[in-house]
Amino acid sequence: MVTRLSHYFLRTLREDPADAEVTSHRLLVRAGYIRRAAPGIFTWLPLGLRVKAKIEGIVREEMTRAGAYEVHFPALLPREPYELSGRWEAYGDGIFRLKDRKDADYLLAPTHEEMFTLLVKDLYSSYKDLPLTIYQIQDKYRDEARPRAGLLRGREFTMKDAYSFDYTDAGLDASYQLQRDAYERIFQRLGMEYVIVNADNGLMGGARSEEFLHPTPVGEDTFVRSAGGYAANVEAFTTVAPEPIAFDGLPAPVVFDSPDTPTIDTLVAHSNAVLEGEYTAADTLKNVVLALTHLDGTRELVVVGIPGDREVDDKRVEVAFAPAAVEPATEADFAKHPLLVKGYIGPWSELGPVLGEESATGIRFFLDPRVVDGSSWITGANVDQKHVHTLVAGRDFTADGFVEVANVRPGDPAPDGSGPVELARGMEIGHVFQLGRFFAEKLGLKVLDENGKLVTVTMGSYGIGVTRILAALAELNNDDKGLVWPASIAPFDVHVVATGRDAVAFELAEKLAADLEAAGVDVLLDDRPKVSPGVKFGDAELVGVPRIVIVGRGAADGEVELWDRRTGERETVAAADAVAALTAG
Amino acid sequence: MVTRLSHYFLRTLREDPADAEVTSHRLLVRAGYIRRAAPGIFTWLPLGLRVKAKIEGIVREEMTRAGAYEVHFPALLPREPYELSGRWEAYGDGIFRLKDRKDADYLLAPTHEEMFTLLVKDLYSSYKDLPLTIYQIQDKYRDEARPRAGLLRGREFTMKDAYSFDYTDAGLDASYQLQRDAYERIFQRLGMEYVIVNADNGLMGGARSEEFLHPTPVGEDTFVRSAGGYAANVEAFTTVAPEPIAFDGLPAPVVFDSPDTPTIDTLVAHSNAVLEGEYTAADTLKNVVLALTHLDGTRELVVVGIPGDREVDDKRVEVAFAPAAVEPATEADFAKHPLLVKGYIGPWSELGPVLGEESATGIRFFLDPRVVDGSSWITGANVDQKHVHTLVAGRDFTADGFVEVANVRPGDPAPDGSGPVELARGMEIGHVFQLGRFFAEKLGLKVLDENGKLVTVTMGSYGIGVTRILAALAELNNDDKGLVWPASIAPFDVHVVATGRDAVAFELAEKLAADLEAAGVDVLLDDRPKVSPGVKFGDAELVGVPRIVIVGRGAADGEVELWDRRTGERETVAAADAVAALTAG
Repeated sequence: MVTRLSHYFLRTLREDPADAEVTSHRLLVRAGYIRRAAPGIFTWLPLGLRVKAKIEGIVREEMTRAGAYEVHFPALLPREPYELSGRWEAYGDGIFRLKDRKDADYLLAPTHEEMFTLLVKDLYSSYKDLPLTIYQIQDKYRDEARPRAGLLRGREFTMKDAYSFDYTDAGLDASYQLQRDAYERIFQRLGMEYVIVNADNGLMGGARSEEFLHPTPVGEDTFVRSAGGYAANVEAFTTVAPEPIAFDGLPAPVVFDSPDTPTIDTLVAHSNAVLEGEYTAADTLKNVVLALTHLDGTRELVVVGIPGDREVDDKRVEVAFAPAAVEPATEADFAKHPLLVKGYIGPWSELGPVLGEESATGIRFFLDPRVVDGSSWITGANVDQKHVHTLVAGRDFTADGFVEVANVRPGDPAPDGSGPVELARGMEIGHVFQLGRFFAEKLGLKVLDENGKLVTVTMGSYGIGVTRILAALAELNNDDKGLVWPASIAPFDVHVVATGRDAVAFELAEKLAADLEAAGVDVLLDDRPKVSPGVKFGDAELVGVPRIVIVGRGAADGEVELWDRRTGERETVAAADAVAALTAG
Repeated sequence: MVTRLSHYFLRTLREDPADAEVTSHRLLVRAGYIRRAAPGIFTWLPLGLRVKAKIEGIVREEMTRAGAYEVHFPALLPREPYELSGRWEAYGDGIFRLKDRKDADYLLAPTHEEMFTLLVKDLYSSYKDLPLTIYQIQDKYRDEARPRAGLLRGREFTMKDAYSFDYTDAGLDASYQLQRDAYERIFQRLGMEYVIVNADNGLMGGARSEEFLHPTPVGEDTFVRSAGGYAANVEAFTTVAPEPIAFDGLPAPVVFDSPDTPTIDTLVAHSNAVLEGEYTAADTLKNVVLALTHLDGTRELVVVGIPGDREVDDKRVEVAFAPAAVEPATEADFAKHPLLVKGYIGPWSELGPVLGEESATGIRFFLDPRVVDGSSWITGANVDQKHVHTLVAGRDFTADGFVEVANVRPGDPAPDGSGPVELARGMEIGHVFQLGRFFAEKLGLKVLDENGKLVTVTMGSYGIGVTRILAALAELNNDDKGLVWPASIAPFDVHVVATGRDAVAFELAEKLAADLEAAGVDVLLDDRPKVSPGVKFGDAELVGVPRIVIVGRGAADGEVELWDRRTGERETVAAADAVAALTAG
């Protein structure tokens, strides 16, 4: 059925919405695709719903092709499954919780790992049932602290989430590959550039984890890539440690006075002055005190030593110490540990080791992988206004472990030897990763194998943000006039604009629209009777259907104009040829 | 793509679920369509999702045909719009409420009148924009006190809700009719018997309100119908009052002793004994004391007088006094009103009027419409152990108003003169009603009319319970073997069963399935290699695809069996003719 603008529920807006921070948000609201209902929560208008349905259609087709079956879990779920997995607590303020009239705890699900796991546990019992991949396209909820950027970071959003179930690691690898391939096809069909980056697998303990990032300046994520093909998000980047150095013949550590040098810059300047050296920040060891809050609520201070020319990266440190929450140590923390002299902290003092394996403080000490055995450092002497130089790693101090918390810098070597990396901005549009047996163990999902032995199932998790992709596509496909959708997801195939005061133009437009519909083309017909051609053209440009047909002055001669929204090219053709031209592909 | 049972996410169950109260729930769980996630909250498995999508597809087509446009509102909504309409409070315990991390109030929307109204207010301003009808198909939430009967009364459920917007009453009537016609087409296409009954419009004040009831013994609603075509739910039934009777010559009221007669039965027996009459319960006036709780929290006692052969109907009394909540008066209420002598209450005593317009008690008194002026009653005398007879309405007592609270009985005359009514059970499957200007006034939705004057918009509300319809269709379409879907909503068009150990049967089944898919037929292929024919047939019967093809023994001769699930008829045809036979319509 032809959709007529004279009746359609569409009002374009002249003004940008006051709260729009990004282009996609601005244009989707102005062109009548979405409307804000609450912070981070949107109403879908008819145009928006059409584009969303097209994206979902492509995702469904590729899921079916990958052998996945669609299910649908409730959004409102009881506490118990999330209690079993430990996530009821772990989510903190990040989810919406509520109680029913009987005072039972519920949540609005942010993800459904527990439910997928329990459903399969409920119905399956044998290795013969596997492999299985099931998915849903569903509205999810996260109580974001700062919902922003329109659909890009909302509190109610649509996701496709799939889970695979296998009983062997090889099976998981195969299921993973099927989904990974499906994701590549989806993004190719949507015309979205993507980079597949290695990602940290967090707590789950599975083997592979990859994010699909869409490179864009409005992306929230920073990722790392080398010209040689390496790509990872910053959390997953691993440092190339230098070779250890022989200790032999290195002089002993020397404590020296260093008044008023609590920062690396002041320390380097002072050291060069008093030691007559040419030290740089890279020669200093910066010891940062962090407070971890563990899942059981206990608080632990740890110290991490990194080269003084680097900073602790918030995302990397979060992943390094997960599931504990990390924050800088407070004055109260320092007050409890008089051995840690703020601004002058180091792993060693003239009395012996202060931090690390042999220390008696009980404070764990972690080192950046660059601090290899035999490397020599200027660092705090654990005495106010004093530092030490020629403090040699492995000889004078040791660590309780190595952590990847220092920031990645352009020029750092890629861990796979493919050359120096650069940093870029990207938006996460998909994530495939191997959950492994984390949830299956927590929730007791086991099957009998070929030998009649119960084995724990191994799972993969595969997510695509449908509403986020829609916003990303709007971000990618626009110009100063408005949106310019790719044909695969445009709300309509053709936008027919009837202009002028001549009945003949409107009649021809009606006929053309009807012929196009008969040929299977979805038509939006601008048949508004008293609207000027300028307004109609402006609306067509704003709405962004890729193919526009103008039926106006030439109608009396049986001519219409084909207008390519993307290139702006216009071409006059006989109305009789228009259907063929518009359905030619 | 052919869906293969060897891989499909489907496990049928031999046992009925323990919590299933109704056939639809039992079969939908056993046949692998749904799975319980929490009380009144269900997970949709692949088969269930397919049927749901088909129902939604039919609803969408008919909405489009009726000129309605689809939108989609969030399920999670802020308090404010519901505060403006007064419903945040009015919903009581019936909805899910929650707070976000900033302590702002939210709810899971049970219906979206406020949001529809505000959206149109946001975008429209002129009579030229109207009429408009928009709808959504959406998951809704109600915190039912007693979720039950599977999908029939759930806490998370899918509805199609539409709203029309007009600026004249005639416009509303036209929009209403379009939706009403669409509903008739929807139920006809779904093959569901329905009765359109008049319904009470409650608080909204609009003119028309009709429910689509599906007659079924498992229905929760009682409705009333006459052979002459009248139909109404019990709340909306209106009593045909007899003609008033002249008072002249009627004897004066007489108080008489009536020890131990607090019930109508004891009163009638006693009256017939001491008055030597042939009275029945219909000659007595029963005065019931009710406690109303008004929206502002105040509690008010009222008395309703009804003929002694009727009961107060809970649903009718609820509607009669809405929006106040109604409950029977408590002992504490009686204690506060010593004039009301329990068991012996009447509108009159020897001291004069106790209830009604001229009473000084301040307790409002309502009468059943049958208590017409001149009718004569035996009723309480407001003295313990005493009643009064020949108490004449309009002469000895008057009311503050008339209310429809007495129960409807088979044989009562239909208000439209179409004869006596009968009572039947039905399930509400749709509701169309004229909201009128209730929400538009509360939320300030006005448009400029032809004369440039601001007028308040008038609205219609049109709801269909998608998941409830699915359950109702399962309730309607089954036999002792399982489900028997109508073709229009079956999860697959054809279920091909390959049986036996012969590779030739499996090969022929594969070829037939592929040919059917090529002809546009959705096929479920039972290609499970080591499952007995009996199990396969049982599963096919349970799942309920209406057309089954058995490819087994005859395969070597190029023959297959067509099996009509509903009639049980089987017919052997050449495999080469099967596609034609199955696509013949």
